[in-house]
Amino acid sequence: MKNTFGQSITITLFGESHGPAVGAVIDGLSPGIPVSEEAIARQLTRRRPSSALDTPRQEADRFQILSGVFGGRTTGTPVCIVIPNENTRSRDYQYGLARPSHADYTAFCKYHGFEDYRGGGHFSGRVTAALVAVGGILLPALERLGIRIGTHILQCGGVEDRSFGDFKKDLQALQEGSFPVLDPLSGDKMAERILLARQNCDSVGGVTQTAVCGLMPGLGEPWFDSVEGLLSHAMFSLGGIKGIEFGVGFGVSSLTGSQCNDAFRMQGDKVITETNRNGGINGGITNGMPIVFQCAVKPTPSIAQEQKTVDFRTGEDAPITIHGRHDPAIIRRICPVIDSVTAIVVSDLLAQRYGTDVFCPADGKEDTQ
Amino acid sequence: MKNTFGQSITITLFGESHGPAVGAVIDGLSPGIPVSEEAIARQLTRRRPSSALDTPRQEADRFQILSGVFGGRTTGTPVCIVIPNENTRSRDYQYGLARPSHADYTAFCKYHGFEDYRGGGHFSGRVTAALVAVGGILLPALERLGIRIGTHILQCGGVEDRSFGDFKKDLQALQEGSFPVLDPLSGDKMAERILLARQNCDSVGGVTQTAVCGLMPGLGEPWFDSVEGLLSHAMFSLGGIKGIEFGVGFGVSSLTGSQCNDAFRMQGDKVITETNRNGGINGGITNGMPIVFQCAVKPTPSIAQEQKTVDFRTGEDAPITIHGRHDPAIIRRICPVIDSVTAIVVSDLLAQRYGTDVFCPADGKEDTQ
Amino acid sequence: MKNTFGQSITITLFGESHGPAVGAVIDGLSPGIPVSEEAIARQLTRRRPSSALDTPRQEADRFQILSGVFGGRTTGTPVCIVIPNENTRSRDYQYGLARPSHADYTAFCKYHGFEDYRGGGHFSGRVTAALVAVGGILLPALERLGIRIGTHILQCGGVEDRSFGDFKKDLQALQEGSFPVLDPLSGDKMAERILLARQNCDSVGGVTQTAVCGLMPGLGEPWFDSVEGLLSHAMFSLGGIKGIEFGVGFGVSSLTGSQCNDAFRMQGDKVITETNRNGGINGGITNGMPIVFQCAVKPTPSIAQEQKTVDFRTGEDAPITIHGRHDPAIIRRICPVIDSVTAIVVSDLLAQRYGTDVFCPADGKEDTQ
Amino acid sequence: MKNTFGQSITITLFGESHGPAVGAVIDGLSPGIPVSEEAIARQLTRRRPSSALDTPRQEADRFQILSGVFGGRTTGTPVCIVIPNENTRSRDYQYGLARPSHADYTAFCKYHGFEDYRGGGHFSGRVTAALVAVGGILLPALERLGIRIGTHILQCGGVEDRSFGDFKKDLQALQEGSFPVLDPLSGDKMAERILLARQNCDSVGGVTQTAVCGLMPGLGEPWFDSVEGLLSHAMFSLGGIKGIEFGVGFGVSSLTGSQCNDAFRMQGDKVITETNRNGGINGGITNGMPIVFQCAVKPTPSIAQEQKTVDFRTGEDAPITIHGRHDPAIIRRICPVIDSVTAIVVSDLLAQRYGTDVFCPADGKEDTQ
Repeated sequence: MKNTFGQSITITLFGESHGPAVGAVIDGLSPGIPVSEEAIARQLTRRRPSSALDTPRQEADRFQILSGVFGGRTTGTPVCIVIPNENTRSRDYQYGLARPSHADYTAFCKYHGFEDYRGGGHFSGRVTAALVAVGGILLPALERLGIRIGTHILQCGGVEDRSFGDFKKDLQALQEGSFPVLDPLSGDKMAERILLARQNCDSVGGVTQTAVCGLMPGLGEPWFDSVEGLLSHAMFSLGGIKGIEFGVGFGVSSLTGSQCNDAFRMQGDKVITETNRNGGINGGITNGMPIVFQCAVKPTPSIAQEQKTVDFRTGEDAPITIHGRHDPAIIRRICPVIDSVTAIVVSDLLAQRYGTDVFCPADGKEDTQ
Repeated sequence: MKNTFGQSITITLFGESHGPAVGAVIDGLSPGIPVSEEAIARQLTRRRPSSALDTPRQEADRFQILSGVFGGRTTGTPVCIVIPNENTRSRDYQYGLARPSHADYTAFCKYHGFEDYRGGGHFSGRVTAALVAVGGILLPALERLGIRIGTHILQCGGVEDRSFGDFKKDLQALQEGSFPVLDPLSGDKMAERILLARQNCDSVGGVTQTAVCGLMPGLGEPWFDSVEGLLSHAMFSLGGIKGIEFGVGFGVSSLTGSQCNDAFRMQGDKVITETNRNGGINGGITNGMPIVFQCAVKPTPSIAQEQKTVDFRTGEDAPITIHGRHDPAIIRRICPVIDSVTAIVVSDLLAQRYGTDVFCPADGKEDTQ
Repeated sequence: MKNTFGQSITITLFGESHGPAVGAVIDGLSPGIPVSEEAIARQLTRRRPSSALDTPRQEADRFQILSGVFGGRTTGTPVCIVIPNENTRSRDYQYGLARPSHADYTAFCKYHGFEDYRGGGHFSGRVTAALVAVGGILLPALERLGIRIGTHILQCGGVEDRSFGDFKKDLQALQEGSFPVLDPLSGDKMAERILLARQNCDSVGGVTQTAVCGLMPGLGEPWFDSVEGLLSHAMFSLGGIKGIEFGVGFGVSSLTGSQCNDAFRMQGDKVITETNRNGGINGGITNGMPIVFQCAVKPTPSIAQEQKTVDFRTGEDAPITIHGRHDPAIIRRICPVIDSVTAIVVSDLLAQRYGTDVFCPADGKEDTQ
Repeated sequence: MKNTFGQSITITLFGESHGPAVGAVIDGLSPGIPVSEEAIARQLTRRRPSSALDTPRQEADRFQILSGVFGGRTTGTPVCIVIPNENTRSRDYQYGLARPSHADYTAFCKYHGFEDYRGGGHFSGRVTAALVAVGGILLPALERLGIRIGTHILQCGGVEDRSFGDFKKDLQALQEGSFPVLDPLSGDKMAERILLARQNCDSVGGVTQTAVCGLMPGLGEPWFDSVEGLLSHAMFSLGGIKGIEFGVGFGVSSLTGSQCNDAFRMQGDKVITETNRNGGINGGITNGMPIVFQCAVKPTPSIAQEQKTVDFRTGEDAPITIHGRHDPAIIRRICPVIDSVTAIVVSDLLAQRYGTDVFCPADGKEDTQ
């Protein structure tokens, strides 16, 4: 389905970095979900370049909702959100020279030279603005059901943040802070490393950690639509992500079964696990504990040093020096994107399980007036 | 789509551990693909418990092809393969006691007590036999196109194997060996650790590494159907997998952009990269280099020690001691399953890109006589 | 998706007329649905050739449920039903001569000669036995929700049956009768025509009419997944169907708007329409009135007269005389198939709207004991 | 998938009659397809109200391509086309009174009062403008492959047009004419009837006939994705369509097998049929003859007479007189919509069969310069 994802709730992405606009169509939403332009703008602000840590390309991220919202609420029909592109500087890109670890060459192989190469075209991180705008609708809708999602930088340039502890407090703090870490001191050190990388004409990678709290047990499927499968599928859309792990993830390799298993116990009349090494998922299905996963985010491949590459038009080796405006680390800006993608997957799981009215006010329109 | 996966080529899984059979329907295959019962049996043998390292449950894995094959070749219509269950011992399982890190409790939440709980039911690793049988058709079909897939244990119980080096030789060696490692000495040490775990009434986890060689550049999609997204989606069907990473994966977090980027260069008239830290994928699309990925495989959660858990029928804490027959490490047996799942995803990518005849002999039936 | 249909509830078909078996996998069913082997057998009996009106090929239609049913109820995981083929006589078919209005030639174009041509292979009406078996699970499940489905022959060989009148009585009568007509006298006349056709080495076509009663309003979608769209998509799988119309259907062409519109009025606190020319669907969505549709069923193309055709192996004109065993009219036997296909579509609409538990006993397992 | 249709090539619709815009995202197109704004505008003109036969609502149908086109050609990434709404007069609509045979009441049942009811909202025929714009890209692309599509009014208000005869000439004539009939005299009489209906505050229905010429044999699938199934699924999105038939369609009911079968014969080295009663499709798969199908189009339900209905807010019977601006017959304007929907389905069939490059210039970009 290429640029459409989901089953009961589907999202369709479109747009190029230097074309007229990027945007998304989200379909299958319950009618009656409040849509706040402020909430959407707030999410977009979290993603926007804002300091010396980010690309100097500035985008107002003004958006327009073309359909599916009426009287401040979803109608139940497709919502199309469009974010016009501004401040594009196409002259920075030279067609034919494949930027290393970018999609220039693979796009050429796939699209035979017809691709819109300017600024990475449809491969550009710019398209994630549309995902984030969708998150601006879904994240508050999930919160009204008691489901909260948050992402922080667990590691960046060798500096570590602490893992999630008190989920409620930590998720609240992430909503309020500007740099997505749980320990502000870690954030300061990460910022130093990022600035250092910029000075060295280089970039840094890292690891994010995401939590989803308040999900009911019983969501997901044993086989192809395991919760891990759906989240990973959606998450690997983000060009910079090269790994995903749930719970202790790759840490399982050094544990024995007795060290790795999560013992169940009753907490009142609720079943919980004493540890959460499985990241809230057993057999592909939520067990009621927080879903916790980590993503590996590669260093921005656009660096200001000269690199070796080829010119795929001529079939010759050639050096490349990338100009243009780039982030020395995309990891801060990817956090709200991960939140939004997570919200898309979780919303779809709910709609598949509970039907298309899952987000609808219980008594229909009467309830909302 | 729950138990169906794929777009041009789809696979549908069914079956329970202690029901009459497990099986799969594979649809969308080109007509004319040779189907060798020996090749299928060979794959099933790779997955079958075979030594003290594995569960004592023995299955003959006799299979029957119910449809879609005629005169030793695929017809182009759905192939249904059924593997009857034998040697089931349902008395080993006691309903209500949730085995830690198993799907007993989540199945109960999802299926409300109607689930076939015997032997893990539909969640059982037994169902992977059907995936492997499908691999017995697809892996040789891919090889005829010059595409080879292989998986080895990169790490198990703290013992490491070397990474892929000379892909051609390594993949050949994996096909011929019985224990899937590149360095036989590592295999011996891993076997020791696994046996030790069994003696300790415990189990061990590990990491697998898979390579796909010979793929043309230009497969996959920029957004939701990135090659990473499709492979991870399918792979997380396997209950024991808790993480997946491509190329250097989580290693990106300690690299700078200049250390992580893969420089392009010409090799004759072919574009290659000098390193392969991106695992053969840029922007979600194959670049012609080998696809390389690692999966984290958790220790078998079924261990013979007493563990703490709950009885979800009564809502009370209760100890559990798991009897039954289990593997002290599933990692050896998961390797052919990963190969098969990879073959399914790769075949679908080819069919989407090149059409439904991609595996068909070039000149139709004439070519095969 | 070729041989898989549906979204929340999916059905996957497999099998060839003269292969080992035909069958279906149905996925996405609620857990806890009672499965009665008698009910399945009863549906299969409705489809089975039973008199001089039908093909002399006799099939026992013994079926086996391989998965997804435990303790007489669905588990919520895929149900695979297999119906072995018996009594096959492949020698009646001569490869290369394209039977007119059959799929022999189109199968050759699509499958390049690798198709299983015996008895029509995967194109055979034999595969509908699997659809009917699925109906044996779904039709009773729908009835427990108050939803009833029935099909009669509205016209055959120039003889007309009356249209549905009192739906409740008519649907009940159809369940009890052996020849699916509302007016038994019409049935007798139709039987005469069918026998006459057989004597003439010919066959006859007709029109069926189907009703779905008890459906709640609000199912279906404005655009691509209109109720008409989904039903027609599924129904045109049946090789003999060449037209479908809802309500007055093609009759709209001779009506003005004032003659064609269905006036709404209150009946107690329920909204009904005074007429039902739209067949229970407005804007693609159910309005609470019975869904009524008609299907055009072509005369069986297999007739015992010599016909003109080509041999597509040699590329030459050639006469053909079809031997083998065939129905002089498939319309009687297609009625239970239409019921089953309708049940599949309606069940999926319910599951999409109300979630995967829509058929589950309200209080879970407790409710059923 | 609600508002998304297709497999290799997908279309996603959005928009409401009186919202900011309607539009479509088309994904999966080959790179390199020429996109002519003139061709799109020409299709939109065919659908636009243009005379006393149509609604007085005038729309400029200015459109904007937001993505997926670069240098006048498709890039291979999603094309989003947006058509802003203008000239909306919402005051004509009174919420609560269900217009008979419209979707007002069913929308209320489905969307619980949150629907955008103005002008029919997402159910409005206005949304078909987006389909037609997509046709403006696909129809010329198909023509370059030798595939031509055309639709005429076969019957309207009791007046009949002749059926297709010489397809090549007829399709050419339809492209050039303004009123879509094959016999201009029939067109004149139809226009009279339509004007008469308007004078009577009434409307008329009719039947369209569509042909697709130049398709290769072997497209489509035996079961759920038969060519009939896909075309009908897509076609029933159009609110006014209540029936579809292929070839002789419902006419089969009065034919015997010997009258209905299409004899094959060789024409040079090509297999053709002497008649085309199956409408170019055998067993769900194209046989190389023209695909021919008819659609029943109901009379516009918006008529200026007082009608009986209910107010679903109050649950009371109430009369309704529809003001606003409406077509006395939508059948003329639905013809280009049917062409576009047909083009969408046919393009997807080609891409599934021949791969995503099917429309791409043979030698890539070089070929186009």
